[in-house]
Amino acid sequence: MVKKLALFTISLGIFCSSFGKANAVDIFDRNITLEEVETTQKGWCDALLKISETYHEKGFKVAKRLSSKIIDIAYGYDLGPVAFNPTWTFKEKNFRSTKRGALSYFVGRDPMFKQDIGFAIGSPESDRSKWINCKIENSIIQLLGGTANTMGNVTFTAENGFTSTVDKTWTFLKTYEGNIKIILHESATPFR
Amino acid sequence: MVKKLALFTISLGIFCSSFGKANAVDIFDRNITLEEVETTQKGWCDALLKISETYHEKGFKVAKRLSSKIIDIAYGYDLGPVAFNPTWTFKEKNFRSTKRGALSYFVGRDPMFKQDIGFAIGSPESDRSKWINCKIENSIIQLLGGTANTMGNVTFTAENGFTSTVDKTWTFLKTYEGNIKIILHESATPFR
Amino acid sequence: MVKKLALFTISLGIFCSSFGKANAVDIFDRNITLEEVETTQKGWCDALLKISETYHEKGFKVAKRLSSKIIDIAYGYDLGPVAFNPTWTFKEKNFRSTKRGALSYFVGRDPMFKQDIGFAIGSPESDRSKWINCKIENSIIQLLGGTANTMGNVTFTAENGFTSTVDKTWTFLKTYEGNIKIILHESATPFR
Amino acid sequence: MVKKLALFTISLGIFCSSFGKANAVDIFDRNITLEEVETTQKGWCDALLKISETYHEKGFKVAKRLSSKIIDIAYGYDLGPVAFNPTWTFKEKNFRSTKRGALSYFVGRDPMFKQDIGFAIGSPESDRSKWINCKIENSIIQLLGGTANTMGNVTFTAENGFTSTVDKTWTFLKTYEGNIKIILHESATPFR
Repeated sequence: MVKKLALFTISLGIFCSSFGKANAVDIFDRNITLEEVETTQKGWCDALLKISETYHEKGFKVAKRLSSKIIDIAYGYDLGPVAFNPTWTFKEKNFRSTKRGALSYFVGRDPMFKQDIGFAIGSPESDRSKWINCKIENSIIQLLGGTANTMGNVTFTAENGFTSTVDKTWTFLKTYEGNIKIILHESATPFR
Repeated sequence: MVKKLALFTISLGIFCSSFGKANAVDIFDRNITLEEVETTQKGWCDALLKISETYHEKGFKVAKRLSSKIIDIAYGYDLGPVAFNPTWTFKEKNFRSTKRGALSYFVGRDPMFKQDIGFAIGSPESDRSKWINCKIENSIIQLLGGTANTMGNVTFTAENGFTSTVDKTWTFLKTYEGNIKIILHESATPFR
Repeated sequence: MVKKLALFTISLGIFCSSFGKANAVDIFDRNITLEEVETTQKGWCDALLKISETYHEKGFKVAKRLSSKIIDIAYGYDLGPVAFNPTWTFKEKNFRSTKRGALSYFVGRDPMFKQDIGFAIGSPESDRSKWINCKIENSIIQLLGGTANTMGNVTFTAENGFTSTVDKTWTFLKTYEGNIKIILHESATPFR
Repeated sequence: MVKKLALFTISLGIFCSSFGKANAVDIFDRNITLEEVETTQKGWCDALLKISETYHEKGFKVAKRLSSKIIDIAYGYDLGPVAFNPTWTFKEKNFRSTKRGALSYFVGRDPMFKQDIGFAIGSPESDRSKWINCKIENSIIQLLGGTANTMGNVTFTAENGFTSTVDKTWTFLKTYEGNIKIILHESATPFR
């Protein structure tokens, strides 16, 4: 798991700079890069597959604990209200601005959000068949300083062949500690 | 000491300053404000109603010309690719990163986008009854420097009583000239 | 004068938000405001006077401890390298990218920075007379999203009448916790 | 899959991306990069040398016209007030928030700014000997989204061997057209 989670961490890496004298230039960098955006998206997919796998191998409780950790790492609920509109939520429970709402969406079984199927575990439409693939197809990426937007499709494939494609919009924010957090997540079933 | 240190904390409101001489301070301000976001949202609604009214009173051509002007003003197609996923678009025409795609969505009748109903004119479901109301209900607003995100619902009401509510996510960007432009627009039919 | 300043005040309060239904809109705001900039500048002045007062009333050690706390609160050394070029530093000690260098500049007596006079305590030119006034005259303020620049003059007045005016440039950064931190501080004796 | 990920690595300039399907991802990028900052700094030095050379080869008028063009390109006076405090300015003419003030600083001979020596032409201290070298030594670079700060030294060398080193602080801003503009420029003679 630690390895998977490492995907969320930033490798600020190998900049080189410094001209003039031999002294190193101190760099203070808060820009979010394309690489960081794409690494974080892939980390999100990997995390989703890991939750599904954990549910099938170790049961609901372990999967829920894992989801909770993943939300802490991947979403910015510690920074402020997150704009999260998951795919299959509706009415007054449509928006999940708190971590509890996000967790329920991922694993379900929260009496406060009875509508939630626990998407990360597996779709009821496919008898909860384990998710084994998560493919991101970005249409547009916008790098906006400390934040970045992406819009495109994500396709989930279950072990039994079932697939689900959604329209997905994300805003990622880079904290001053260098972590990338989701602060906006809109997901919807394509119109047709 | 605590009192002195409190000076560093933010006191939203009780601004006191007024230091120095009588000279005016030059201000260079590129932050987008909550007020600008809400005014722009309202402007979007007003523009939509105006397009519908123009169609009903002056016909398609005038409405199309108006839509074109409105898109130039309201969307950032002059700045770069806009992330625009309208409500009733799909498949390879799902995302409208160019002005032409946006225009077709608003008024329709573009052979390149045959699926488009021309939403701003009036819904086919209501026999193109004129839109007379557009209500925005924000769930979350995120002010992020030169850009701002909003997520919530928009409800359109037609003259014959027909209503349509959609989930809507916007990113607004403030240009250095001080104009507010939409650079991301995601709209979807609520799940239920 | 009051009128001029009134123009700059941001009235975060009077926005009306939340149109549509009665629900509160969640706001996630990371923009730095003019008011926050000016409050922080005033806080910096007050802190400087407090350090000088503390030195004269309670001695060097207490003043140093206070300075250390103030630097932690007011400067962004916890976020990354701070661009700090104090007024009377030079050569290889010109830039103080670490907290230790900043502390030495404020109170002096650090063998690593022998040149430092301990400016906050009082100028050697005025026999360390206590600073009793600190006046900021901004020429330009630039609000740039999560950061803001200011350029202008600061005039310090000592109890014995001695005054010192410096050119001062600051960049302030607003953290996601809502604190305002100095990440750039350039100070220089005016050319004449 | 690993091979696919290799595509995400950032190559400043030749971006290729696109995973999932063959479609290109549209990128909207307003982040200022380290490379852009350093290229712009070098461009500033080159421009200064060019002004001095032009003065010596073609006279004042041509050098002034060139300076005017350079200021239009390199400084953000078209965007708003620029925070510009040149090295040898003082008192009420200390700050040059307009293009005219900047031009006078570079080439002099403006009755409104009698103090100006026309620094870009050559220093009076070296009998206007032509500048032949301009070396930038950054101490700190801060990448802050659409803007970047630098602090360090710049050393100018004249044909007759005269050198001048100044403390220099810049804020660069990237416009939505992708141009890099100076919006803050503080320059000062080092303390000793």
